[in-house]
Amino acid sequence: MLLRSDNVAGVSPEILAAVSRVAEGDMAPYGEDPVTAELQARFAELFEHDCIVLPVSSGIAANALGLSLLAGPGEAVICHRSSHIAGSEAGSVELFSNGARLVAFDGPDGRLQADTVEQFLSQTDFARAAVMPPRALALTEVTELGTVYSPNAVHELTSVVRRFGLRTHTDGARFANALATIGCRPSDLTWRVGVDVLSFGATKNGAMFADAVVIFDKSLAPTLARRQRRSGQAMSKMRFLSAQLLAYLEDDLWLRNARQANDTARRLAGGLAQLPGFDLRHPVEANLIFVRIDVAIVKQLAAEGIVFRARDAMRPKDSEFRLVTSFATSEAEIERLLGACRMASRHASTKAAE
Amino acid sequence: MLLRSDNVAGVSPEILAAVSRVAEGDMAPYGEDPVTAELQARFAELFEHDCIVLPVSSGIAANALGLSLLAGPGEAVICHRSSHIAGSEAGSVELFSNGARLVAFDGPDGRLQADTVEQFLSQTDFARAAVMPPRALALTEVTELGTVYSPNAVHELTSVVRRFGLRTHTDGARFANALATIGCRPSDLTWRVGVDVLSFGATKNGAMFADAVVIFDKSLAPTLARRQRRSGQAMSKMRFLSAQLLAYLEDDLWLRNARQANDTARRLAGGLAQLPGFDLRHPVEANLIFVRIDVAIVKQLAAEGIVFRARDAMRPKDSEFRLVTSFATSEAEIERLLGACRMASRHASTKAAE
Amino acid sequence: MLLRSDNVAGVSPEILAAVSRVAEGDMAPYGEDPVTAELQARFAELFEHDCIVLPVSSGIAANALGLSLLAGPGEAVICHRSSHIAGSEAGSVELFSNGARLVAFDGPDGRLQADTVEQFLSQTDFARAAVMPPRALALTEVTELGTVYSPNAVHELTSVVRRFGLRTHTDGARFANALATIGCRPSDLTWRVGVDVLSFGATKNGAMFADAVVIFDKSLAPTLARRQRRSGQAMSKMRFLSAQLLAYLEDDLWLRNARQANDTARRLAGGLAQLPGFDLRHPVEANLIFVRIDVAIVKQLAAEGIVFRARDAMRPKDSEFRLVTSFATSEAEIERLLGACRMASRHASTKAAE
Amino acid sequence: MLLRSDNVAGVSPEILAAVSRVAEGDMAPYGEDPVTAELQARFAELFEHDCIVLPVSSGIAANALGLSLLAGPGEAVICHRSSHIAGSEAGSVELFSNGARLVAFDGPDGRLQADTVEQFLSQTDFARAAVMPPRALALTEVTELGTVYSPNAVHELTSVVRRFGLRTHTDGARFANALATIGCRPSDLTWRVGVDVLSFGATKNGAMFADAVVIFDKSLAPTLARRQRRSGQAMSKMRFLSAQLLAYLEDDLWLRNARQANDTARRLAGGLAQLPGFDLRHPVEANLIFVRIDVAIVKQLAAEGIVFRARDAMRPKDSEFRLVTSFATSEAEIERLLGACRMASRHASTKAAE
Repeated sequence: MLLRSDNVAGVSPEILAAVSRVAEGDMAPYGEDPVTAELQARFAELFEHDCIVLPVSSGIAANALGLSLLAGPGEAVICHRSSHIAGSEAGSVELFSNGARLVAFDGPDGRLQADTVEQFLSQTDFARAAVMPPRALALTEVTELGTVYSPNAVHELTSVVRRFGLRTHTDGARFANALATIGCRPSDLTWRVGVDVLSFGATKNGAMFADAVVIFDKSLAPTLARRQRRSGQAMSKMRFLSAQLLAYLEDDLWLRNARQANDTARRLAGGLAQLPGFDLRHPVEANLIFVRIDVAIVKQLAAEGIVFRARDAMRPKDSEFRLVTSFATSEAEIERLLGACRMASRHASTKAAE
Repeated sequence: MLLRSDNVAGVSPEILAAVSRVAEGDMAPYGEDPVTAELQARFAELFEHDCIVLPVSSGIAANALGLSLLAGPGEAVICHRSSHIAGSEAGSVELFSNGARLVAFDGPDGRLQADTVEQFLSQTDFARAAVMPPRALALTEVTELGTVYSPNAVHELTSVVRRFGLRTHTDGARFANALATIGCRPSDLTWRVGVDVLSFGATKNGAMFADAVVIFDKSLAPTLARRQRRSGQAMSKMRFLSAQLLAYLEDDLWLRNARQANDTARRLAGGLAQLPGFDLRHPVEANLIFVRIDVAIVKQLAAEGIVFRARDAMRPKDSEFRLVTSFATSEAEIERLLGACRMASRHASTKAAE
Repeated sequence: MLLRSDNVAGVSPEILAAVSRVAEGDMAPYGEDPVTAELQARFAELFEHDCIVLPVSSGIAANALGLSLLAGPGEAVICHRSSHIAGSEAGSVELFSNGARLVAFDGPDGRLQADTVEQFLSQTDFARAAVMPPRALALTEVTELGTVYSPNAVHELTSVVRRFGLRTHTDGARFANALATIGCRPSDLTWRVGVDVLSFGATKNGAMFADAVVIFDKSLAPTLARRQRRSGQAMSKMRFLSAQLLAYLEDDLWLRNARQANDTARRLAGGLAQLPGFDLRHPVEANLIFVRIDVAIVKQLAAEGIVFRARDAMRPKDSEFRLVTSFATSEAEIERLLGACRMASRHASTKAAE
Repeated sequence: MLLRSDNVAGVSPEILAAVSRVAEGDMAPYGEDPVTAELQARFAELFEHDCIVLPVSSGIAANALGLSLLAGPGEAVICHRSSHIAGSEAGSVELFSNGARLVAFDGPDGRLQADTVEQFLSQTDFARAAVMPPRALALTEVTELGTVYSPNAVHELTSVVRRFGLRTHTDGARFANALATIGCRPSDLTWRVGVDVLSFGATKNGAMFADAVVIFDKSLAPTLARRQRRSGQAMSKMRFLSAQLLAYLEDDLWLRNARQANDTARRLAGGLAQLPGFDLRHPVEANLIFVRIDVAIVKQLAAEGIVFRARDAMRPKDSEFRLVTSFATSEAEIERLLGACRMASRHASTKAAE
């Protein structure tokens, strides 16, 4: 499948080199090593704020561990119905939190709206014992539908939930892609606009395996080390994750990688938008494209060996598809693909005209 | 507060008498007693089907224990957003099931619609590891908004979910009220239309404290005794609950009680519907009435000491109210109340005309 | 089975009468009623200390709910290996606490020893993230082996654990029997000697279905109402439980009942101790007797229809038995039983001599 | 700290090279890649048995995920009191299993004895609802006290538990060290002697971050993929873990590394055993040494900058220490250390003689 996901790519050479550089010699385990200490300093600088960085093994682990700091058993998390935690993590939030509840809402193009959240929060008396009190708002940046929350949009949402005592978590599996689109500083999308905990993704954007939980609200720290260990995320040779994350930030590698993914996606989306029989379903604001394609064109492309991932695995005959570019996607690839689509579109309309 | 809830009433004399009759002498504990054995036989006869009856201490315990048989950790339960399990049980389903997820949908007048459920189930490939598979549909009979699912409506919903491998649970906290409205046999609202587990409520309708889990699908039995005990529901002197439930069924006490509640509700709703300034919000199909009342009337009633429970505790100044009748509500009470409302309505419109 | 358990008895007439007295009329639900308010005052007086009383449906519910206030996920509870929570509650502590761990120790005659607990607590650095920190000590009064902790013994244990930051819970399913043996005030076995939460049992000693969680440390209160509801223990017509507990205390009914059980047990144990072929296994300090009986005598008794409950259900042919007296056990019964045992003992030794 | 742990070492060059070889190009995510496919085949060959290999991020994750296949909520796991799951994983088994219970027993030198387990299992009727049924036996190979279970010892234990319906999990964080000591084939320590699930450790013995769950009983497979994802262990670029594990096995690297660790430990232990003031606490059968050292010697060594890790972090002034060698420990290091110990021992005894 072409452009199946951004997690099919390999690793940036700079990151591989960084791992090699820390390969030898004794270092204290479980994150007490100097590489991880440097990582803490680097993130504090990057985010212009004191914070705790916890490298973890996957984006799911980052989300579930991070949210478990905000909501426990008998407490609720507000999220978008399309969010990764609601649809693709097999219940990891419920597991790590020992039974918190996700309360999911709809919203256009994968984005929660402040009105929806405010209405829900103001409608119920959460002080009553009968009611499961919401403790966290979960955002996704870039959303699962390829759109981006602006700093203002984030701030509007966090302002609402703070009035009701909730904290905010952002699933930043594609945080770099969002930053690259918006062009703001990391702080402008996080603590400055009310985000308390961030899942900082690197794996999809050039690392081998290294995501991280970034905690801006240090009052959440005391239970952290225990949760990290209990959830199997206290990696003994943590230096190998920390080294990846340091290299990821070095010389803006992460932003360069993200821009490459975003640029190729924009170019592809722009091209497809011109073609008869192709219909973009959501604004393309980062590196995800959702497109409906006429069935005749789908068949024509398949005949040439070009198959996309169905938007929905359940409906493989459906004509909606999800295309994802990555740091490893080249302009040449995009041009070739656009060429093939153009041909298939023309071919299909000729056939239809016959 | 007038007509605050049906759980403010006392106990039917027949039920109290039945408890007294089993008060003396040794009996085997934990439901191995002859009273509980008789209860099993009585329910099998009542429902015209082999079943297991488990007396429990509350409706919440019945729902949470019953649903825990259908969905476990990492599995989901489909329910209406207004359902008691979603809004009033403080996370009991999550607790008893060790972390199942509630997936809530809207639907008019508190009823789930088959289309909504079918769309959700057919949209996603629940065989994928990424997805939390739904295992149960949770219905409520009478719904939290006072409406009733007809046998056909239940059957339509259970037929959809069975195709996807789900089982069905009905929260029958007001099961007698639904039966009294519909006028069908207990089986017509349960196993004949695809319900596998029923929370059978008696407390709101005349018992002291006695609800029950009724299991029609005996393949669910093996883990039952353990779950009963683990959840603190293995009462040692079970005879005292079983005796209540037997008396509840004797000579149709349960249906007589329910009819009294339903009839007084209907009379009240019918009267209010005629009055200017009173606006019924949902069809009144059992013993719950939701009504919007003009603020001037609300004030006038309050001046006479008549205060209703706000529909929503969070918005006490809001003018929507929930009124619930019970087996202990008399026609005289209703007439008095209607008289006061009539006066208040007239008084308010006179004042407005000045 | 003779003297199978104290939960096979019926209900004290005074308690039944009290239930009847509150049977009629409207009262606020979920413990907001005046009967439950009176109960709060009565317990404060009884224990000479401000406290919260929460009526619950069973002793298991009392233990699990009470301990869940002290230890949560990732935290541990120290208990005796023979305790009810460790051996007979099917994992209720783990369920209600969302995964706390029981750490069980041995100790003679069912009693934990301060040394054992101190050694465990001082051996490990519970501040380390790798370690599950103990948060509670769980005692049982009367123990499962029929012995009693003296106030001094309790104090010695709670003094140890307090130094390490733990709180103490006492499973007082047979609290009245312990009090009756020791002859002290309720406060002398609870808050005065460091007990923070008490499971106050009434069901085994004359109630229908009424145990209670008594909380002396009010800093535990905030999460209580939610936990009560989440665990299915927010009974809507709470008055019917509160009335039982009030009657239980009235005119020292509880102590009179307990004395009857203890006295008959002491008499029986004293008699058996004299007989060849009967061998008491633990000190008989309340209403439980553990006795080894020669196989020949067991057979002789069985021939006369006298069968006791095996100490261990797994080893039914074993010759160790558990006998439990209750408030409903009469001296006449005990005399009859002793007579039969005397005969069987004589018969067996005669036979052996042949 | 000298010889603090085997997880302070770096990575074997062969493993780093293998990671570099798979760094480029697209591969299917989440273990659908060809490297992971090769891993499956390689493990089947290695263990001479069909099996499933699941690379995970840490040894704790391997244990918790593996055991969650064997025991769920309301079920128990038998383990040694010194085991890693009981003492060093912060409750990960409870978390991943949604509340299973660890039942811990003592046994000499960190090894469970078949008698102890048999006595526990045969003493209780686990069919009773009151009792939490044990479903798994958890062994550790090498044990936390540095001893090894022989194939016969494992078989004796698994034979006991199988009679009671339990399955067996082995925590093989140091599986290679055990194999190197025993000199048998991998199958001789696993499925041939009744082990159903193995935590296969590589991180402590030369990998960067790569442990694995190995499942020999394929009937456990169906829930596996969901649990993997739910617990944050579905790494998207799985190839980077699989490549490490393949290189680890290539040309017996794993056994060569383990032998280096074991040999240096044996040499060190042998030398220390000769010295006055040094007292080995457990047989040294792999790469862990527990040694009591006279306080005077401890001080003398400290003066020269040689500090060992206390056996117990809580008692830093205690004179028992844990020394761990690794694949990176050289003979030269051991000789230097032995020399220093010899000097300190002599110095201390001279001083004592003064």
